[in-house]
Amino acid sequence: MEIVKTVNEVRNIVKSWQKEGLTVGFVPTMGYLHEGHQSLITHAVSENDRVVVSIFVNPMQFGPTEDLASYPRDLERDAALCEVNGAALIFNPEPAEMYFPDFSTYVDMEGLTEGLCGQSRPVHFRGVCTVVTKLFNIVQPDRAYFGQKDAQQLAVIKQMVRDLNMAIEIVGCPIIREADGLAKSSRNTYLNEEERKAALVLSRSIRKGQQLLEQGERNAHTIIEAMTAIIQAEPLAKIDYIEAVDARSLKKVETFEHPVLVALAVYIGKTRLIDNFTYPEQLEEAK
Amino acid sequence: MEIVKTVNEVRNIVKSWQKEGLTVGFVPTMGYLHEGHQSLITHAVSENDRVVVSIFVNPMQFGPTEDLASYPRDLERDAALCEVNGAALIFNPEPAEMYFPDFSTYVDMEGLTEGLCGQSRPVHFRGVCTVVTKLFNIVQPDRAYFGQKDAQQLAVIKQMVRDLNMAIEIVGCPIIREADGLAKSSRNTYLNEEERKAALVLSRSIRKGQQLLEQGERNAHTIIEAMTAIIQAEPLAKIDYIEAVDARSLKKVETFEHPVLVALAVYIGKTRLIDNFTYPEQLEEAK
Repeated sequence: MEIVKTVNEVRNIVKSWQKEGLTVGFVPTMGYLHEGHQSLITHAVSENDRVVVSIFVNPMQFGPTEDLASYPRDLERDAALCEVNGAALIFNPEPAEMYFPDFSTYVDMEGLTEGLCGQSRPVHFRGVCTVVTKLFNIVQPDRAYFGQKDAQQLAVIKQMVRDLNMAIEIVGCPIIREADGLAKSSRNTYLNEEERKAALVLSRSIRKGQQLLEQGERNAHTIIEAMTAIIQAEPLAKIDYIEAVDARSLKKVETFEHPVLVALAVYIGKTRLIDNFTYPEQLEEAK
Repeated sequence: MEIVKTVNEVRNIVKSWQKEGLTVGFVPTMGYLHEGHQSLITHAVSENDRVVVSIFVNPMQFGPTEDLASYPRDLERDAALCEVNGAALIFNPEPAEMYFPDFSTYVDMEGLTEGLCGQSRPVHFRGVCTVVTKLFNIVQPDRAYFGQKDAQQLAVIKQMVRDLNMAIEIVGCPIIREADGLAKSSRNTYLNEEERKAALVLSRSIRKGQQLLEQGERNAHTIIEAMTAIIQAEPLAKIDYIEAVDARSLKKVETFEHPVLVALAVYIGKTRLIDNFTYPEQLEEAK
């Protein structure tokens, strides 16, 4: 496995693979890899001849009051995890390699980006779309892998790829959880012991919603209310949003008819965590 | 030469060329081809094994009061010109092939797009950047060719390709003029006989500016004033803008030190025409 820092190095390596007729899978990350990332990498390894992992904490997708400076970083550990999971190349650029001082081009989206996380993070998806477009153009993979934990991001990337005719297959992968239910996230490292316990309200709230649906409840308001009550019972938790939206359009729904995404963002102390489920669960498109 | 209407047909044909190791040049146009377009095609043919011409009047780059409906079209004539100039493929999609009803992704730029034509055509460059990104992703050429007549567009495309790491070489080609000096443009067909004569004020004004520079004048204000006087002497002409800007940043300049772009947009009757020159003339980057 190689670790490179420049666009040209990535291009040359990928070009040599493509000349040999090898397929390329791509896992874009911000590093500090956990089992969620590892599942993306192993999924990519199973479907492609070579896998590239990018590790880049993208300044453009953080708002001015967000956790860019404190975002956890550990390249050595990340590199070991990439290697053991079968990645062939890590692209770990400096911000200056990605953004020239007079950088001024943006990829942005209306509609899907406006609700859910887009509401409290207004520049976030512009930053995500722009950096993912750049990374796709640099790596030129056949397939790229994103976690369902960032459900809105996955929907946005799929729409962007379709709208801009990017010749890349987007593969969504299931949420990976701790044994007690907490969705794996690099931001979980921000939690102290007390907050770590409090953070379980997210997955407990999700299980509550799923139970109600299994019992036949279809009214979105009733389900969101029951989920909200669980979060509100936790003093360390503060809800950013809990919403039931159409899984494709991300528009609010009143009842569960078509596949619905139930997504939530909750502050546990100062740490903003997200989680979600889809009902009925959607199978990835057949390959 | 083939003419195709779908993204998939283009992809399959280009993929088969790339498998043979052939290089691909691309000339994006809105059709109604004139000698300016033909010079782009012949330039592309001289540098690539295969050349794709797109013919697509892109609704997204026209403002609500602009000439989308009346823009001239003649596919049969265009196809003959492409063939005689050596193009291998025409991509001529319907708007519905390019834009799904829920299309919502945009490529946009700050800075370069804000002055000159961007001021009177506020959505124009967003439409240009978005459609060119789509066409680049569909055709995946090695090189793409744009005319220097649309000087701001050429600067914007170069910046977009650099900022978004598109693996495509952008080649700018010189303005082609009628014998009497009028820059070739599909929009020249809008002009009646009287307007056609009046339209010569653009190129006369440009020659005046060049003469002053050759005589040693370096003050931008003096040069723009002399050029303005020529346009204003023509009753059918109405100036949209005449400006001297840095050829790279497109920011206004006071004196001619570094390469300067002098660009103008003038209404002749209802027809908006553009023209420009750069001083000192910039040679294209060495290949």
